[in-house]
Amino acid sequence: MEFIDQLRNLREQVLFKADLNIDSAFKNIVISGMGGSGIVGNIFSEIYSRKPVQVVSDYVLPEFADKDTLFIGISYSGNTEETIATLEEAEKRGCQIRLITSGGKLAASGHTFAKVPQNIQPRSAIGYMLKPLLSSFLNLPDEACLGISKLLENIDRDNNEEKNLATEIFKHRSIPVILGYHPFRWIAYRWKTQFNENSKIMAFSNYFPELNHNETMPLKDTYEKDKFMFLVFDGSQNSRISKRMNVTAEITGTKFHVISIKGRNLLEQLFYLIHYGDYVSYHLAGMRGIDPNDVSLIESLKKKI
Amino acid sequence: MEFIDQLRNLREQVLFKADLNIDSAFKNIVISGMGGSGIVGNIFSEIYSRKPVQVVSDYVLPEFADKDTLFIGISYSGNTEETIATLEEAEKRGCQIRLITSGGKLAASGHTFAKVPQNIQPRSAIGYMLKPLLSSFLNLPDEACLGISKLLENIDRDNNEEKNLATEIFKHRSIPVILGYHPFRWIAYRWKTQFNENSKIMAFSNYFPELNHNETMPLKDTYEKDKFMFLVFDGSQNSRISKRMNVTAEITGTKFHVISIKGRNLLEQLFYLIHYGDYVSYHLAGMRGIDPNDVSLIESLKKKI
Repeated sequence: MEFIDQLRNLREQVLFKADLNIDSAFKNIVISGMGGSGIVGNIFSEIYSRKPVQVVSDYVLPEFADKDTLFIGISYSGNTEETIATLEEAEKRGCQIRLITSGGKLAASGHTFAKVPQNIQPRSAIGYMLKPLLSSFLNLPDEACLGISKLLENIDRDNNEEKNLATEIFKHRSIPVILGYHPFRWIAYRWKTQFNENSKIMAFSNYFPELNHNETMPLKDTYEKDKFMFLVFDGSQNSRISKRMNVTAEITGTKFHVISIKGRNLLEQLFYLIHYGDYVSYHLAGMRGIDPNDVSLIESLKKKI
Repeated sequence: MEFIDQLRNLREQVLFKADLNIDSAFKNIVISGMGGSGIVGNIFSEIYSRKPVQVVSDYVLPEFADKDTLFIGISYSGNTEETIATLEEAEKRGCQIRLITSGGKLAASGHTFAKVPQNIQPRSAIGYMLKPLLSSFLNLPDEACLGISKLLENIDRDNNEEKNLATEIFKHRSIPVILGYHPFRWIAYRWKTQFNENSKIMAFSNYFPELNHNETMPLKDTYEKDKFMFLVFDGSQNSRISKRMNVTAEITGTKFHVISIKGRNLLEQLFYLIHYGDYVSYHLAGMRGIDPNDVSLIESLKKKI
């Protein structure tokens, strides 16, 4: 699939029906996944906290994981070595195991899994991988998914705002720093990684209020600050965060580029922001004359190690 | 206290005797703290995982927190608004509550707390704040603490390596990007925040293997890459990580500045790396003609919000 078709596919992905068929009790959840698959777990952990959810993006399973733990392994390819290492350990510990994958060793492992469609870049399959979690743990009526899909379709039709932001970044060779806040902390990280993988530029993320305790210090007067472009999601939904954003900008003399948020509920807002960032990174790749699909460097690294 | 005396004080801090006197059972732990206090919880969460540990650096307590939860609030001043917000919520939920603080509202709240000495910058009190957690949850004999103290004393006596690294950063006006790995992920973040607060420069952190799934992409060929200096902790203790570091450097043509690790055990290594980073950020502040103690910007932000 062309990259633009993968992007547009997100509005279909949110209609994807999949369930993890969780049938026994558990006391805590460990979600294991790397990169574009791990982000799915992290985004989920911001909207579901009725049980402790620990997201592992590494080789190591936490010690507490045992038969009372629901282990959810997410790997689009099904062959990610870190995820497989944690799965093998989860098997030894007797965890309840569920997987989200399009194939590979995970699909062949014999555990119950949500099968997501193949032939798409893992980072472009975020809807496919998130839906099994949302459907299994949140009460999510079909109309809610239709609402999200409709909103994404609007972005697919008109993404001038996204293109304008990409133009700004391109013109100034900026390094984006995306400053999120709960429950959009991991959306900020998603933007960072999309800039990394699609546009092939350096990018970083952080979140309010934590950044006010350290990262704020150099914002007033340091070297190379003008290389960065600071992006914030409109904080008006949370008065303390919004106040922090305004005061931080004011006392440090920093211009924040504000991304307005659309959506009638949290899930619409989440997917709106995801899709918004996807388009910015896509347009920026085009302006830089770079193929957003290409991650051959990561592929070659995987082979070499 | 002068900043250098605060730094040197760390070797006394690791001998600090404090315990949280945890007397009833719990199923999970929530540690709440911001900035230099929150890092304490995060570093602890990398070396203790026998129960689920969730660190909150925000206003919001996860939904699962209830009477079976051990809530540990950490605020050096005792007056951090985010930590107080989570403490009040923890009280309502009936959590078992323990605090680590030098005074303020936390000390006056009536809950059992570990009292850490006053008149030091919160970020320089990392030993005082970490010790109650280490003593309460890990079997930590006095000799182990003496060993750590001895190692830190060596750095206090000779920190030429640290000064040389600061000189490199100063000369090139570099933006440090510290790339850690488990169990030093949060040490990398600690370095980032020390560069931010002490040296007043931009700095970022990430960790292996996660960064190989996204942040690696722009390392080959992007704009402004030469503004950054990439610092890695010697990965030779973990063969997969060490391989990843070497291959990442090789295929992207990136020079990693390797920080060698000293220490006979994990805790010695942890404190060694903390103290190493502290000195680099301190020397860099001096070279930049900046007071490492000064965080008046953050203080003025707190007043304004």
